[in-house]
Amino acid sequence: MSTDARKRRICFPITSRAYYGRSQLLIRKLQDHPAVDLELMLGGSIMLDKYSRHISDDIKKGGFTISASLFNVIEGGNHVAMAKTACLTALEATNSLYTADPDVVVICGDRFEQLAIAMAAAYLNKTIAHIEGGDLTGSIDESVRHAITKLAHIHFVTNDDAKRRVLLMGEDPKYVFNTGSLDVERVACVNADITTKELGTYGVGHDVDVTKPFLTVIQHPVTTEPDNKQHLETTFRALAALDMPIVWFWPNPDAGTGEMSEMLRHFREHHEAATEKMRFITNLPADQFIALLKRTACVVGNSSAGIKECSYLGTPVVDIGGRQQGRLSADNVVRTGYSADEVRAAVTKQLAHGRYAPSHIYFKPDTSQSMVDVLTSVDLYTQKRFHEVL
Amino acid sequence: MSTDARKRRICFPITSRAYYGRSQLLIRKLQDHPAVDLELMLGGSIMLDKYSRHISDDIKKGGFTISASLFNVIEGGNHVAMAKTACLTALEATNSLYTADPDVVVICGDRFEQLAIAMAAAYLNKTIAHIEGGDLTGSIDESVRHAITKLAHIHFVTNDDAKRRVLLMGEDPKYVFNTGSLDVERVACVNADITTKELGTYGVGHDVDVTKPFLTVIQHPVTTEPDNKQHLETTFRALAALDMPIVWFWPNPDAGTGEMSEMLRHFREHHEAATEKMRFITNLPADQFIALLKRTACVVGNSSAGIKECSYLGTPVVDIGGRQQGRLSADNVVRTGYSADEVRAAVTKQLAHGRYAPSHIYFKPDTSQSMVDVLTSVDLYTQKRFHEVL
Amino acid sequence: MSTDARKRRICFPITSRAYYGRSQLLIRKLQDHPAVDLELMLGGSIMLDKYSRHISDDIKKGGFTISASLFNVIEGGNHVAMAKTACLTALEATNSLYTADPDVVVICGDRFEQLAIAMAAAYLNKTIAHIEGGDLTGSIDESVRHAITKLAHIHFVTNDDAKRRVLLMGEDPKYVFNTGSLDVERVACVNADITTKELGTYGVGHDVDVTKPFLTVIQHPVTTEPDNKQHLETTFRALAALDMPIVWFWPNPDAGTGEMSEMLRHFREHHEAATEKMRFITNLPADQFIALLKRTACVVGNSSAGIKECSYLGTPVVDIGGRQQGRLSADNVVRTGYSADEVRAAVTKQLAHGRYAPSHIYFKPDTSQSMVDVLTSVDLYTQKRFHEVL
Amino acid sequence: MSTDARKRRICFPITSRAYYGRSQLLIRKLQDHPAVDLELMLGGSIMLDKYSRHISDDIKKGGFTISASLFNVIEGGNHVAMAKTACLTALEATNSLYTADPDVVVICGDRFEQLAIAMAAAYLNKTIAHIEGGDLTGSIDESVRHAITKLAHIHFVTNDDAKRRVLLMGEDPKYVFNTGSLDVERVACVNADITTKELGTYGVGHDVDVTKPFLTVIQHPVTTEPDNKQHLETTFRALAALDMPIVWFWPNPDAGTGEMSEMLRHFREHHEAATEKMRFITNLPADQFIALLKRTACVVGNSSAGIKECSYLGTPVVDIGGRQQGRLSADNVVRTGYSADEVRAAVTKQLAHGRYAPSHIYFKPDTSQSMVDVLTSVDLYTQKRFHEVL
Repeated sequence: MSTDARKRRICFPITSRAYYGRSQLLIRKLQDHPAVDLELMLGGSIMLDKYSRHISDDIKKGGFTISASLFNVIEGGNHVAMAKTACLTALEATNSLYTADPDVVVICGDRFEQLAIAMAAAYLNKTIAHIEGGDLTGSIDESVRHAITKLAHIHFVTNDDAKRRVLLMGEDPKYVFNTGSLDVERVACVNADITTKELGTYGVGHDVDVTKPFLTVIQHPVTTEPDNKQHLETTFRALAALDMPIVWFWPNPDAGTGEMSEMLRHFREHHEAATEKMRFITNLPADQFIALLKRTACVVGNSSAGIKECSYLGTPVVDIGGRQQGRLSADNVVRTGYSADEVRAAVTKQLAHGRYAPSHIYFKPDTSQSMVDVLTSVDLYTQKRFHEVL
Repeated sequence: MSTDARKRRICFPITSRAYYGRSQLLIRKLQDHPAVDLELMLGGSIMLDKYSRHISDDIKKGGFTISASLFNVIEGGNHVAMAKTACLTALEATNSLYTADPDVVVICGDRFEQLAIAMAAAYLNKTIAHIEGGDLTGSIDESVRHAITKLAHIHFVTNDDAKRRVLLMGEDPKYVFNTGSLDVERVACVNADITTKELGTYGVGHDVDVTKPFLTVIQHPVTTEPDNKQHLETTFRALAALDMPIVWFWPNPDAGTGEMSEMLRHFREHHEAATEKMRFITNLPADQFIALLKRTACVVGNSSAGIKECSYLGTPVVDIGGRQQGRLSADNVVRTGYSADEVRAAVTKQLAHGRYAPSHIYFKPDTSQSMVDVLTSVDLYTQKRFHEVL
Repeated sequence: MSTDARKRRICFPITSRAYYGRSQLLIRKLQDHPAVDLELMLGGSIMLDKYSRHISDDIKKGGFTISASLFNVIEGGNHVAMAKTACLTALEATNSLYTADPDVVVICGDRFEQLAIAMAAAYLNKTIAHIEGGDLTGSIDESVRHAITKLAHIHFVTNDDAKRRVLLMGEDPKYVFNTGSLDVERVACVNADITTKELGTYGVGHDVDVTKPFLTVIQHPVTTEPDNKQHLETTFRALAALDMPIVWFWPNPDAGTGEMSEMLRHFREHHEAATEKMRFITNLPADQFIALLKRTACVVGNSSAGIKECSYLGTPVVDIGGRQQGRLSADNVVRTGYSADEVRAAVTKQLAHGRYAPSHIYFKPDTSQSMVDVLTSVDLYTQKRFHEVL
Repeated sequence: MSTDARKRRICFPITSRAYYGRSQLLIRKLQDHPAVDLELMLGGSIMLDKYSRHISDDIKKGGFTISASLFNVIEGGNHVAMAKTACLTALEATNSLYTADPDVVVICGDRFEQLAIAMAAAYLNKTIAHIEGGDLTGSIDESVRHAITKLAHIHFVTNDDAKRRVLLMGEDPKYVFNTGSLDVERVACVNADITTKELGTYGVGHDVDVTKPFLTVIQHPVTTEPDNKQHLETTFRALAALDMPIVWFWPNPDAGTGEMSEMLRHFREHHEAATEKMRFITNLPADQFIALLKRTACVVGNSSAGIKECSYLGTPVVDIGGRQQGRLSADNVVRTGYSADEVRAAVTKQLAHGRYAPSHIYFKPDTSQSMVDVLTSVDLYTQKRFHEVL
């Protein structure tokens, strides 16, 4: 706990590798700010070796204060495990927030643990800042994101559509800021590249030559749909037919992950021919991930990185199914349903097209600095009031 | 778990005495409906003897199926206890919802445990119906209510203002129903009276003659304010000066309750003269509570019963402070700040005025039947989409 | 977390007011020891204002490091609340022990939270020291105490009988130390007195003149018996008939507390004549409590203070029922069943007898220093082995 | 909950695949007994697909009543995950035991979740029966087993040494029964065989011909030792040098499992030559497991199956390290330390020796029926008393 009463205490809960990548610039600037006491709270998949070994090392090297390291992921990879993980996270976050006693808790995005932490923070009467509200997607994320908005006091949105919706929902215009996307700011700042050899040090499977055309697959479960396993199989069959090298990311630990991961393991064991050009990776450090997006011929799946990071990079994307449904996208995205023919046709089309011109729909310069400016200077409040738009 | 696949399984979590009173007509009709399997989940203060002895007896006599009885209230009466109570409730509700496997979970109002249960239900991919969304108030309830709205799929609002706001927030107009208030429907249906003798069997302190003018005080903590104890003391001093009989209800178990309850106990121990016309009650059965509202000369405090039930009854109300701020109210309500002079002046004015003409702002006939009709016939869905109003 | 690897890190979980009183000399010496990093973990009833306001102030003034402050008491005062309180305590203690990473966790006595913490510590592979193993009593404490013994690595027992039993249970003789009772060491050290006026600042009810004969009642629930309420009523009726001033302590928050507390409140409300010489107290600071034991004519109930502290003081004790059954006691104790006649007769007999000669069955000089010596010098180990006595 | 008050309600918590195998005969007999209401509580690794798909199917087919299905395994495979899994299990078991309200809870063995459930049951004042108390081993199991003994009221031990120790620990001789081992009773009853083809349907890796000599490796983490990964590597190198077919079981989900599993995966990915005669299996149905033990040339590792089941079967066993230290064993067991040379020499020696004569140290006829007889007829009690042996 700070002994310097004049500093603003800011708590930043990081519960997944994606959030850490996204937040690096912001937490570094907060850490270096003389008027801020920053405390990181680590939980969720960040604590589990298999996903994030590199991350906890990074954080330690970065000199950050870690107020809590919570093991709170319930095994199962199904809905009940996801729900209980969120509840346990909230329970433990309550203790940590009570001890750390921050002035502001920064909630990021729309993952289920983040709503749980927001709920705990709200009950503890903390001011909540929310990054990336107002977007539209499918999956349970759609509900979670807007529920967090209604608990939050300060809103950092990434685009003007999102801003309009956050205001429609009754938030105070004085506290809604379109700062652009942190993910895209990172993309714009990072100059990294990745070699075939470096890529070969991550994950399992066969080497993928990054100097030749290859696909990148990131397909997460859609928690509100029952057929995640079949949808993954469809993608697999569609892409296997193309006979291209593929870097395939394991799915996020949401409901449905278990059966999807099992299917990937099944492909590896029983379809050796089909997977002999594939590499399976759980996690890349954020810089290498961006480098990969720059090099890949096409991103396939349903990751927000396809919509956001790739809009700025001009990387062709085939977005499958409902997970990103409704999300603002640039020309680089072709959307498809779950049929193998559709997916294959869309990928073929994108490969033929090649890279797109960069789009700035999610980009504003100095995103993280703008957030720091707000977080350090804005008047904090806790009692929310509904602002009706006319 | 139902063996009859054609019945709709509905889960109704009841976590406070107020919710039970409010819901009686609805759960009775659901229980009697041939196409419904109803399961009650009991938790929160409902399980604690001191608040709700009469209620659990009622429920057992009513023949309801109780899928879970959860002891999940953390002692402390402060913010951290409130937060952890919510989190523990959600954790345990997850197990119960997983086992009971309902089609619909009915969330009621804006208490903190209800958001926690809504969160668990959302992660379990259940359809959520929410009663009383769209209203405005102060306290943490304001945030909680709207966050539940953004997790819910079916909305039963109590007035047209609330409907407008729920639609602004992006909910699907096909699933937003203004059915009026369950509380007010009960008031309209109940013909009960209460005698001085009956009242004397509840709570502690001195007898209050219900045939002569008396005040009813219901002042709960405002979780987003630090001065609940002082505000209660102000009310006490203001009313003690009036030298009238008072029925005083203990506060709800939210953050701030502990210090308020302690102050009430202090008044009783150390201000015997001032409390010698006062009776202190934790709970009345719902019918007797309505009877009391009919007989009392004025309701003082910050209970929603003053705004809703009393609007229909025409009972004069002095609403103190920010807890009901922004809530639609009828002519019977005079609002004041926290100064003792203001409160005393407002009560004096209301006593001089006497009863008001009934208002129907929260009333529609057949509220509970309308809800049953929707719950049994509406198409259920889980993937939410934001509906932008023009 | 210590940065000085040579210091032994010792964690001391304090979960009730009694444990704090008992441990004061020990934790002060540990805190002052140059080779020890002491961390206190506060939880259970210690965190709840109504029981322990004075204690948390004391601890803060004492300059101790508090590694965790856990609100983990589930309301209900019944078995399920007790069980869940223990489980939640263990869950939260796991996080705290993981973060604090102590070398030794000191578990004290036989309360249900302490077994839970011992279990968590054992799974975390910590060395566990246990104070007060090997005694015999009734209630669930009997099981809990011996189960802790079988998880613990270092044993501080208070008497030779207890030592024999701990060895019988298979513990390593090199790690079993009869250091005498911390409670009795405190009694021997404390020179405090209490005045009528001071006593009057604690609790509620009528003043008790400490210069004239008065009784002290401490009757806790026996968790393995169903009739705690009736047994309390019996004690009340037996003592009311004696028409003596009484200082009556509220029961500990174990299963059965709720109904016992309610009964005491009922006596106060509805038996004003019978309670007009009674004062009801939740907590006295440890020194004043000892002073009270020195002054009282007789201690009635089932507290271990009657058996241990009063053995040294020679204070007459009437020990009722099964809670202390089997515990080594000195001549000052008269044991009775639950009949009002028995209780009244025993009290009358003790009043006639007056004070007893001090006994040293639980006393050894320098108890706390002996413990410190062991804790700082003994070789630590984690893998237990059963030592069979011949 | 039973409606027939004359039936004895027995709750059987099953938290691992091993416990299910062990308990099959017992729970079948309890289920069929006219005076028993049996309820199974499922939790731990039993709920996770990867370990126990076959088991939950079996249980459903068996017509058992399942009072709770708890997802309560915290990911991490380390000490803090193990501790929290136990605590969460206890928390949830409390709710289930409260609802099911059994007369007896049957705790089995020494796994960490079972102590947690025993603790919850003890606080709920249930009579606890414990199977397999009094044995000696290493690892945290050693502490856990004896702590359960001190919470339990009825003891089913598997051998006379164990009985002596349970009595030494103060248990009532009237409630200590040497019924022999359930595991061994199953072995004696099961007539199953397993074919190469059947074995090939489980797990991953290469086929193992069961008609030719092969090794079976079951090496679990020793939670009180830091070097589980290295010890596994030692075993791997020792056995790889023997160039024999191996059926290798994945370790139990205790602390240390994560790094051990990762090492096994590493072997598979990066030591293809060395693993080309190996098959890796998470789970076999109990009958097939016994069949495998009958056919294997030697069991290597630290499983209790090597000590108990194999004693009756006469299967040669090389028991490595401290996990089974102190456990009563027959001639079929050769014990070694963790050096590769020792392990290889011991296996070579056992292969040269071949099968042993059956031993009855853990065997009594009708084990499960004896337990049923006790569970249905013995007087139940809850207040424990220490019985001192002379």
